[in-house]
Amino acid sequence: MEKTVGEQTVGIALLGTGVVGRGVIDILAQQRDLLRSRTGLTIEVRSRVCRDPSKYEDDETGIKATTNIADAIGDPKTGIVVEVMGGIDAPRHAISAALAAGKHVVTANKALLAAHGAELFELAKKHGVSIAFEASCGGGIPIIDALTRGLVANRIDALIGIINGTCNFILTQMAQNGWTYADALKEAQRIGFAEADPTMDVSGRDSAQKLAILATLAFNQQVSETDIALTGIDTLKAEDLQFVDDLGYVIKLLGIGERVEGQLALRVHPTLVHKGDLMSDVSGGFNAISVYGHAIGHQFFYGRGAGQTPTASAVVADILGVAMGTIPHAFERLNVFHGRLKKARALPADQMESRFYLRATTQDTPGVLAGMTQALARHGISIAAVHQPEIAAGTKHVPIVVTTHKASEGAMQKALAEIDAMKSVQAPTVFLRILERPAEFG
Amino acid sequence: MEKTVGEQTVGIALLGTGVVGRGVIDILAQQRDLLRSRTGLTIEVRSRVCRDPSKYEDDETGIKATTNIADAIGDPKTGIVVEVMGGIDAPRHAISAALAAGKHVVTANKALLAAHGAELFELAKKHGVSIAFEASCGGGIPIIDALTRGLVANRIDALIGIINGTCNFILTQMAQNGWTYADALKEAQRIGFAEADPTMDVSGRDSAQKLAILATLAFNQQVSETDIALTGIDTLKAEDLQFVDDLGYVIKLLGIGERVEGQLALRVHPTLVHKGDLMSDVSGGFNAISVYGHAIGHQFFYGRGAGQTPTASAVVADILGVAMGTIPHAFERLNVFHGRLKKARALPADQMESRFYLRATTQDTPGVLAGMTQALARHGISIAAVHQPEIAAGTKHVPIVVTTHKASEGAMQKALAEIDAMKSVQAPTVFLRILERPAEFG
Repeated sequence: MEKTVGEQTVGIALLGTGVVGRGVIDILAQQRDLLRSRTGLTIEVRSRVCRDPSKYEDDETGIKATTNIADAIGDPKTGIVVEVMGGIDAPRHAISAALAAGKHVVTANKALLAAHGAELFELAKKHGVSIAFEASCGGGIPIIDALTRGLVANRIDALIGIINGTCNFILTQMAQNGWTYADALKEAQRIGFAEADPTMDVSGRDSAQKLAILATLAFNQQVSETDIALTGIDTLKAEDLQFVDDLGYVIKLLGIGERVEGQLALRVHPTLVHKGDLMSDVSGGFNAISVYGHAIGHQFFYGRGAGQTPTASAVVADILGVAMGTIPHAFERLNVFHGRLKKARALPADQMESRFYLRATTQDTPGVLAGMTQALARHGISIAAVHQPEIAAGTKHVPIVVTTHKASEGAMQKALAEIDAMKSVQAPTVFLRILERPAEFG
Repeated sequence: MEKTVGEQTVGIALLGTGVVGRGVIDILAQQRDLLRSRTGLTIEVRSRVCRDPSKYEDDETGIKATTNIADAIGDPKTGIVVEVMGGIDAPRHAISAALAAGKHVVTANKALLAAHGAELFELAKKHGVSIAFEASCGGGIPIIDALTRGLVANRIDALIGIINGTCNFILTQMAQNGWTYADALKEAQRIGFAEADPTMDVSGRDSAQKLAILATLAFNQQVSETDIALTGIDTLKAEDLQFVDDLGYVIKLLGIGERVEGQLALRVHPTLVHKGDLMSDVSGGFNAISVYGHAIGHQFFYGRGAGQTPTASAVVADILGVAMGTIPHAFERLNVFHGRLKKARALPADQMESRFYLRATTQDTPGVLAGMTQALARHGISIAAVHQPEIAAGTKHVPIVVTTHKASEGAMQKALAEIDAMKSVQAPTVFLRILERPAEFG
C-alpha cells in the first residue's frame, strides 16, 4: 500500500459475510463519495470469503465470493484483511496468515483478541504491520481510539462500562416490563438481540473479554479474561429488579477495572446503579463507558454497542485509518498493546470491595433481622439501610433487604455463609454489588 | 522532527503561561515516565513565552522563560509550537510564523480558529506541517478526534452540544438554587468559572465559535461564526427556570447543527431539555456532545469542558499525536478542515424550526388566552400545552405559559409581534426553544 497523498484505491479482503460484513459492504458502497472526499481513498472490496459462494451468484455488488482464504489474503492488490467471521480458531489462523503476508488486519473479534491478542500483536509487530480493533469493544463508540490517543496524556484510574448490548437489552426489558429473566431472554432471541445459545453474553464472558481489551489499553498491563471476577445475569430474579427500583436503583451488568494500591481490581457483575447516575439511563442495546483519568476527571462515552451499521462504522473507520497510515503509525509507536506489556497484577476477588445489596428470604420469626445484622457486624460490615416490607398475615416467607457500606467480598462471603446457616433463613441469600463511583481526580 | 521509532525527545515551545500552559507543564513533568513508556517520547519544554520572565526566575521547572516568540519558534530543537496564549492577533501572528518556519502547531484557541482557521490551515498545508486543536472544543473530550477519525465512516446528520462550561455552570446554579442570572454570574466569577468580562461566554459567542469548528468537521462544509443564529443566556429570568422545571424541563445553552434539506441549520440558544434526556444531567462545568451519524445512530460524549488539567489533557494528547506522526499523517490526508471545503449553505434563521416555550405576562382580563392562541393559529402554529397558574386575587400580572409543536422561527416571530401588540399583554413575551432530538438513522 502506497502512502502518497491524493486519490488512491486500497483493496481489502473481507473474511466473513455475516451481519457486520454486510454492513461494511453497505457503508463502503453507499458512502463511497463521502469517504473519498474526506480521505482521498476509495476502498475496494476485492473478495469476500464465505462458506457458500453460490449464495452470492446474483449479488448486486459484484464482489468476488470465495472459500479460499489464502487466495483472498494473497491477492497483491489487497492491502488490508478485514476479519468479521467470529469464532477463535479459524480467524486466528487467517489473521496470522495475513500478518505473515505483510497485510494489515482489521478485526471486530474480542474473543480472539482476549485469548490470543499477545501472540497476534507480536506477530504484527514482527512483520511491520498493524492490527486495528475498534469494533471489538463498544460497537460504534470510538473508545479504543480514545484510550490509546485522545486520553493518552492521562493516568487512567478507573474504567466502568456497560459493554454488552444483549445483557443490557434483557435487563431493560426485565426492569421496564417486570419480566422474568427467561421471558426477557426469549424476547431478545425473538428480535435477534440474543443468540440461540446466549451463554457467552449472559454469563458475562463477552463483557469480560471486552474488559480485558479495554483494561489492557487503559492500565497498560496485560489483562486476561481469567484476571476478571465474573458473575452473569442469568440468575437474576425479577423480584430483585423490583426491590432495587423501590430503593432508587436499576441493575446493569457492568465491567469494572480500577487501580487499587498498585493492583487492578477487575470484575464483571450485575450492579445496582443509582437512578441519578448517567449509567442508569443507558437502555436497550446501548453501551456506555466511564473513564476516570488523572487529568480529565470523569469522562463518559455512550452509543450503540452492537448492530450492523454501528459495528460496521467502527470497522470502516479502522479500514480508513489503516489505509491513511495513521493507525499503522500509532500501532508502531504505542506500547499499550497486548504483547508489549507486563502481565496484570490482578487483585484477588476476595479482596475487592464494594457496597452490597442483600435479600434474605426468611421465616417471619423473632430474631431473624437481629441474626443477620449480627453476622454482618461480626465481619466488620456496616449496614446502610434495611427494608422489610409489610406482608399479608399468614405469608410464610418474608424478604429482608439490606444494603451495606463498603466491605470486601471475602468478609461478605463469610457473613453470607453464617446468614444462610441460620434456621430461619432460606438459603441462598441473594447478594449484588452497588456501584460507587470513584472520586474524580482521586 | 525525526520519525524513527524508539526513544526520542521532542522539543516544544509553549506560548502562553496561563492556567492551561501550567497544566501542560505539570502533566509533562508528573507523567513523564508514563508518557515515555506509552509512546517512547520525552517531551521537552524548551521555552515558555510570557510577558514577564522575571516571574519565573525561581521557578522549579527550570524552563527558559522569554518574551521573544521568534527565538522560541526558531529554536532548532523545537518541533512543535503550542499556543495557549488566547486572544486573536498575537496568536495568529505567532502561529503563522511557526507554520512558515515548518513547525507543527498545537492550539486551544477556538476564537482564532473560528475567525482565521481557513487561512491558517492553508498555510499549514503549504508548509507541510499540521495544526492540532483538540483542546479548542469540549476541553478534555476527544470530540475532534472522534469526528475526524473514529466516526469518519458516518454521514453526520446532527450535532447537539453543551460546549460552554461557564454558561452551564451559571444555568445549573440558577436551576438548583433558584438564583437570578446576576447572582449566578457573580458566583461563577467569584470561584473563577467566569471572567471579569463574561460577554464571550454568556452571549453564546464562545459556543458559536466552537460550533463553527465542530460543524465544519462534522458536515464538511466551512462554517463561520456568522452562519450561526445566536442567543445568549444573559437575558434569562429565574422565573422561567422555575416554570420549565414544573413542565419537566431544564434550560441548557445548546449549540445545534443539523442537515435540513441540503442546508445546515446552525444555532446557539438557551433550550428546554426534557429531564429524561441525558443532556439534562450535564451539570456545572461539564460539557456534552450528541452526534447523530447515519451508521452509528446517536452517540454521546460527556466530560469536563474546561479547567486546567482537562484542557491540558487534550493539548498534551495533541503534542504526543504530532510527535508520533499520527496527527500530521491524518492532517495531510483528511479534507475536512477549514480551507479545504466549500462555504456552508446555512439555512436562514427564520426558516429554522423547533418547538417553542412562550411566557406572556398578561393582565387578568377575559380573552387574553383566546387572543394569544388565535395569533399562534393565524401563523399555523399548533399548541402542545397551556399552563396558567392560579394566582392570588388582586395580582395585577398573570403569567400564561404555552408550549407549541414544531414551527418556524419566522412564523413564531410574526405571532409574537401580534401577541405583544395585544393591549392585555405586557411585552415582550418570553420565548425559548425546546430540544427535539432527531430520529436515529433518520
